[in-house]
Amino acid sequence: MIIVMRTGAGKEQIENVIEKVHSFGLRTHPIYGVQKTVIGIVGDDKTRIVEKMHGMPGVEDIIPILQPYKFAGREAHPEDTVIALGDVRIGGEDVVVMAGPCAVEGEEMLLQTARRVKSAGARVLRGGAYKPRTSPYSFQGLGEEALKYLAEAREETGLLVITEVTDPRNVELVSRYADILQVGARNMQNFALLTEVGKSGHPAMLKRGPSSTVKDLLLAAEYVIIEGNRDVILCERGITTFETYTRNTLDLSAVPVIKDISHLPVIVDPAHATGRTHLVEPMALAAIAAGADGIIVEVHPDPDSALCDGPQALTLTQFDSMMGKVRSIAGIVGRGL
Amino acid sequence: MIIVMRTGAGKEQIENVIEKVHSFGLRTHPIYGVQKTVIGIVGDDKTRIVEKMHGMPGVEDIIPILQPYKFAGREAHPEDTVIALGDVRIGGEDVVVMAGPCAVEGEEMLLQTARRVKSAGARVLRGGAYKPRTSPYSFQGLGEEALKYLAEAREETGLLVITEVTDPRNVELVSRYADILQVGARNMQNFALLTEVGKSGHPAMLKRGPSSTVKDLLLAAEYVIIEGNRDVILCERGITTFETYTRNTLDLSAVPVIKDISHLPVIVDPAHATGRTHLVEPMALAAIAAGADGIIVEVHPDPDSALCDGPQALTLTQFDSMMGKVRSIAGIVGRGL
Amino acid sequence: MIIVMRTGAGKEQIENVIEKVHSFGLRTHPIYGVQKTVIGIVGDDKTRIVEKMHGMPGVEDIIPILQPYKFAGREAHPEDTVIALGDVRIGGEDVVVMAGPCAVEGEEMLLQTARRVKSAGARVLRGGAYKPRTSPYSFQGLGEEALKYLAEAREETGLLVITEVTDPRNVELVSRYADILQVGARNMQNFALLTEVGKSGHPAMLKRGPSSTVKDLLLAAEYVIIEGNRDVILCERGITTFETYTRNTLDLSAVPVIKDISHLPVIVDPAHATGRTHLVEPMALAAIAAGADGIIVEVHPDPDSALCDGPQALTLTQFDSMMGKVRSIAGIVGRGL
Amino acid sequence: MIIVMRTGAGKEQIENVIEKVHSFGLRTHPIYGVQKTVIGIVGDDKTRIVEKMHGMPGVEDIIPILQPYKFAGREAHPEDTVIALGDVRIGGEDVVVMAGPCAVEGEEMLLQTARRVKSAGARVLRGGAYKPRTSPYSFQGLGEEALKYLAEAREETGLLVITEVTDPRNVELVSRYADILQVGARNMQNFALLTEVGKSGHPAMLKRGPSSTVKDLLLAAEYVIIEGNRDVILCERGITTFETYTRNTLDLSAVPVIKDISHLPVIVDPAHATGRTHLVEPMALAAIAAGADGIIVEVHPDPDSALCDGPQALTLTQFDSMMGKVRSIAGIVGRGL
Repeated sequence: MIIVMRTGAGKEQIENVIEKVHSFGLRTHPIYGVQKTVIGIVGDDKTRIVEKMHGMPGVEDIIPILQPYKFAGREAHPEDTVIALGDVRIGGEDVVVMAGPCAVEGEEMLLQTARRVKSAGARVLRGGAYKPRTSPYSFQGLGEEALKYLAEAREETGLLVITEVTDPRNVELVSRYADILQVGARNMQNFALLTEVGKSGHPAMLKRGPSSTVKDLLLAAEYVIIEGNRDVILCERGITTFETYTRNTLDLSAVPVIKDISHLPVIVDPAHATGRTHLVEPMALAAIAAGADGIIVEVHPDPDSALCDGPQALTLTQFDSMMGKVRSIAGIVGRGL
Repeated sequence: MIIVMRTGAGKEQIENVIEKVHSFGLRTHPIYGVQKTVIGIVGDDKTRIVEKMHGMPGVEDIIPILQPYKFAGREAHPEDTVIALGDVRIGGEDVVVMAGPCAVEGEEMLLQTARRVKSAGARVLRGGAYKPRTSPYSFQGLGEEALKYLAEAREETGLLVITEVTDPRNVELVSRYADILQVGARNMQNFALLTEVGKSGHPAMLKRGPSSTVKDLLLAAEYVIIEGNRDVILCERGITTFETYTRNTLDLSAVPVIKDISHLPVIVDPAHATGRTHLVEPMALAAIAAGADGIIVEVHPDPDSALCDGPQALTLTQFDSMMGKVRSIAGIVGRGL
Repeated sequence: MIIVMRTGAGKEQIENVIEKVHSFGLRTHPIYGVQKTVIGIVGDDKTRIVEKMHGMPGVEDIIPILQPYKFAGREAHPEDTVIALGDVRIGGEDVVVMAGPCAVEGEEMLLQTARRVKSAGARVLRGGAYKPRTSPYSFQGLGEEALKYLAEAREETGLLVITEVTDPRNVELVSRYADILQVGARNMQNFALLTEVGKSGHPAMLKRGPSSTVKDLLLAAEYVIIEGNRDVILCERGITTFETYTRNTLDLSAVPVIKDISHLPVIVDPAHATGRTHLVEPMALAAIAAGADGIIVEVHPDPDSALCDGPQALTLTQFDSMMGKVRSIAGIVGRGL
Repeated sequence: MIIVMRTGAGKEQIENVIEKVHSFGLRTHPIYGVQKTVIGIVGDDKTRIVEKMHGMPGVEDIIPILQPYKFAGREAHPEDTVIALGDVRIGGEDVVVMAGPCAVEGEEMLLQTARRVKSAGARVLRGGAYKPRTSPYSFQGLGEEALKYLAEAREETGLLVITEVTDPRNVELVSRYADILQVGARNMQNFALLTEVGKSGHPAMLKRGPSSTVKDLLLAAEYVIIEGNRDVILCERGITTFETYTRNTLDLSAVPVIKDISHLPVIVDPAHATGRTHLVEPMALAAIAAGADGIIVEVHPDPDSALCDGPQALTLTQFDSMMGKVRSIAGIVGRGL
C-alpha cells in the first residue's frame, strides 16, 4: 500500500498518518519528494485497514500494490490450472468446445444436437435448465426435467454436461446431474451462490459480469476457491459498452490478460456477446487465435423456432463448418482440438 | 412490433415473413417505401415470438413498440405509487431521507447514529446486516445480530428500518426485522432473490445494477410486482463508466426519466456512486433538485474507523448540516421533508 | 513516480531498473516489502521518461504520483479563477446563465430570443454559426452571417456572446465577433484548434469530450493555458455510456470533482446530454445544486421548427419558468444570479 | 421513418402529427394497434425533418428506418471497395500489414525499421510526423522533417507510406509525402479536417473514435466520400470502456459488423487499444481470424528508448515472429499476405 499525501500537506498531517499506520502494527517508509510526500507501507495488512484512512487530513490517495486475490492469481500458483474430467482436460494442450442449445427444450432436440456436436468435435454439452431472463415474461427453462435430459444425453454420447445454476438452493440438485456448474454473468457477484458452488466441490465456470473488470472476475473466482474448490473456469462473454449494434462488446483482449495474471482456464462465449449468428464464427476463430482454452457456443437444430436466444444460435451445419476452422486455427497457435 | 426488411429484400422474402407472422395468429400491415419495406404487426404477442424471426432471410431488424414491462410502467398505472409505512409516505409529497451506517457494527454505534439522524429529520434507518462485498476478505456483516440491533433502534427512535437481503434463503428472516427489504445493485438481476422478495409482500427497494439501463431496472421491479407485491422503490446509485475519479457515475437524469415512464418512487444514493465524502452533499442536493423522492446516505459516528465504506460516510455533524439544505431545496421544488 | 516490481522479480532486475532511473538523473527509494519491491522515484522528470520503462523485465506497473497538468490544477493556483467580462464574472459569486438557440437561423429569431433571455436573467447569448454535425447531411450553420447577427444582438441587448469555433483557420474570424470561444465536445482533443484558441487570448469554454475523463479535460485546458491564455471555462455536457434513454449521461459529480482539483469555472449543459426537453429543467436545477458556476441552455422561439436539436430546446416560456427556480436554488447554495 | 404515438394519444394528436408530416410533402401509413398507434412515413425526407417532430404532443418516439449514410454503406455499393496503390490492394484478397515506429524519431532508426518490416512482409510503412498527444508536455513529432525521412524510406524500400494529419492546414503538405493520410481517433469527428482530407483526393484511413459507434465511423467516412474521395479505409483501434487493465477495449466484433454493413476495407490496430506489448500478437492474430483486411502495428528497433508509446511497440524480432503466424491464420480464412 502506498499513501500519497496532498501537495502542501503539513508535517503534522504526515506524522498523524504515519502514527495511525504504526497503530495497526505496520511499518512506514516515507519518501519526501520535491512536491509530494508518499508513504510506503510494509507489513501484513490482511484486512486492508489502511484503505480506510482515505478521509484523513492531507491524504490524497491510497494505492494498493498487492493484488486483492490470493488464490486466483498467478503469483500464488505459477503453473496453469488444468481441470481433468474423464479424458477431457480444460486448460490443457487442447482447446475444448462446449456446444448445445441455449435452453433444453425437449428430449429429442437435445439428443439430436448432442450427437451432432459430439461428432463434430465438441467435448462438453451445454443446455439451460434454469434460465435467468431480463424479462419475467420470457421462457425460464424446464428445470429438473431438463437436467434429466442432459444426463441422458451424456449417457448416450459421452459428452460432459455444463448447465447453469441460478439459486443457492438448487446447487445440490444441479450438481447431481451436471459435470460443470455454470454461474451466469448476472450472478457473477451473487456471493451466496458463489459460496454454495464453492462448497459443492464441483467444477464451476464463472461468466464475467457485463460491468465487471477482469480483477472483479478473479475476485468472484476467489469466493469459490476459498471454499476449497479450485476447479474454476473463467468465461469472457462480453461487457457493457455504448455500442448498440452488438448486444455486448466481446473483450477478447481479456483472454491474454487473464492468462497473464491468473492460472485459471479461460473460455470464450462468442454468441451472447454479439447476439447475431453471422458474428459467431469470426469471433470464435478470433478467440482461439487470441489464446482461449476453448469456446462455448449455442447450436440448435432449428434456430428460428428456439425458445431462447434463437438469433444467435448456429445450425448444426454451420457448427460443423466452423469446427473445421477452429481446428486449423488451434493448430497454428500450437494446440489441438 | 415492426419488422424492417433489408434494402433489396425480394417479394418472396417479404411474403415468407408475412406468412410466418400470420402463422402466430397476428396481423400484418406492410408499408412499401421507396427503398425499404417495413411490416407493422398488430395483435397480442405475449411471448414476443416475433422477436425470434431475426434470422429469417431478408430481415434487417425487428423493433419492439410496446414497453417490455406491464406493471412497472406508467402506462398501466398513471398515478404515482405512494408507499405508506406508518406515517411515512415514500413517493408522496415529502422527500424521505434514509440514513445510517454502511454496516451495523454494534449496538451502541447504531443507537447513537439512529438518535442523531432521527433528530435531524431522517425517517428511515439504514444499516447492513449482510454485506455483499467484491472481495471475500472484506467484512461481511454481523447477520442476525445486526438485525436485532436494528429492531431495537426502531423501537427506541420510531425510525423505519431498511436493510439488505442477499440470499433467497434469508428473505423470511430479514422480513421479520426490517420494514423495507433492500436488493443491492449486484443482485438486481438475481431473479431467485427478486421472486422471494416479491412473495414476501414486504416493501422493497431495488438498487439499479451498475450496468443496467433504466429499462432493465423496471424489468427487475416487474419480477417483484408479478408476485403480487406492488410496493417497490427504485434506487439510482451510479452506473459503470470509464471515469475513474469517482467509483461509479451517478446518473441523476435517471430520476426525471423514471418519473416520466414509471409510477414507482425513486430514491438516490449519492455516496456509493461517488465513493468520496466531499461529493455526498452536493450530489444529495442535486438529487432533490432533480426530483428524487428521497435519498439514502451513510452516516457514521466515526467514519475513519468504519468497518465498511468509511471514506464515503458523513459524520453526524456533516449530516446535520446537509439536512438543512436538503430541506430548503425540497421547498423550492415544491416538497417538504 | 512509483515503480512496482513483479512478485518474484530478481535482485538483478531490481538493480537494472534502479540503474536505469539513475541514468536519467533521478534518485530512487526502494522499499522491500514481504511480497513485492516498490521503487519510489524522486527528482524532476519533466518528460515523464520513467513511464517508458514499462517493458523492462520485472516491472509490473508504473504509477504516476504528480498530476499531469501544471496550470489547470488547483495545486498550482489555489484560488478560484474568476473571468471578468464587462460586469459579468464567470466563476465568481453569481451563477451565470448562457442561453440562446442551438444554431443562429436568422436575424429576427436571434434578436427575439436574445431580448427574452436577457430579461429573464441570462448574461450570455449562445448561438451556433459553425455547427459540427455527426452527419454531413445535417444543417451546418450560417457561418459569418450568423456571427454578424450575434454581434448585433450583443449591441442591442448588452449580452455577451459565446459561439463555437470548429476550425483553426476560423479562430481569428470568430474572435472578432465573439466574447467567448466555445470548443465543442468532439473537438476537445483537436490540439491544433486548442493551440489557436490559446494564442487568440480570447476567453474560451471547453466542452468535455464524450469519452474524456475529468483529467483529460484538464489536460485539454492545459493546451490553451500554455499558450498564455488563462481564461478557460470548463463545461460538463455528458459522457458516453450504455444507457440509451438519454443521448449521453450527464456526469454532475464532475462538478464538485473539478471544483476540488481545479481552479477553473465549471458550466453545465443539461440539454445536449439528455436530448429531451423535459429533462432540461430538472438537470439544470441539479447542476446549480451541485455547485456549478452556471449553465448553458438552448432556447428557441419555436423548437418544433428549429434547424438543429429542436427536441432539446426550451420555449421562451419554459425558460422564464426555469429561471425563477434557478435563482432560488442558487440562493440556497449561497450564490446569486 | 416510423412515428410511435404514446399509449393514450388522442385522435386529435394523431391527426395533428399526420397533418404535419403531410405538410412536408410526405405520405403516412398509420397502423392502429391494440395499445398504440404507429405512423409509417413514406417519401424522400432528405433533411430528416420528421426527426424534429419529437416534441409534438402525443409523440413517444421517432424511429429512423433508413441508414443515415448514403455512400459508406453496402446498400449503395454492394461490392467490396478495393484500394489499389501500386501493387498493393487494400481490401482485396491479401491482408495488408502496416508497420513502423509510433513516431519518426530520426532517419537512421526509420530506415532500419523500414527495411526489416519490408523483409518480414509488411507493405506499408507507418510513422508519425505530427503526433496528437493528450498532454501538451509529450513529444509532438518532428513535422516536415519526419515526412522527408518517410519519403526516403519509401524510395529505398518500395513500401507505401501512411502518416497522420492533424490539422486541415497541413493536409496539402502531408499529401505531398504520404500515400495514405491517417485521421486519428481523436480527430474522427473533426469535420474541418475530414473535409480537407476528402478534397485532397488522397486515400485516407479513419481511426474509430474511442466513444464512436460503428455508425458514427461510417458517417465520418461519409464526410470524406461526399467530397469525391471514395478511397477510405476504416480502422478499429479500441473503444473507451470501464476496464482499466487495457488502455481501451479492442472491439473485434466491429470487424465482421463493418464488413456486413459497409463495403470499405477494415484494418485493426491491436497496439493502441491494449497499450501492452504482450497483447499485440494475440490480438493481431485474432483480428485476422475475425476477417480484418489488415493490421497496423508499432515496431521499434529499441522500444525502451522510444519517444512515444514504447510500451506497446514490438521489437524487430517480435515482429518477424508474429508475421509467420499472421500468414498462417490468413491462409485459414482464405487469404494471402
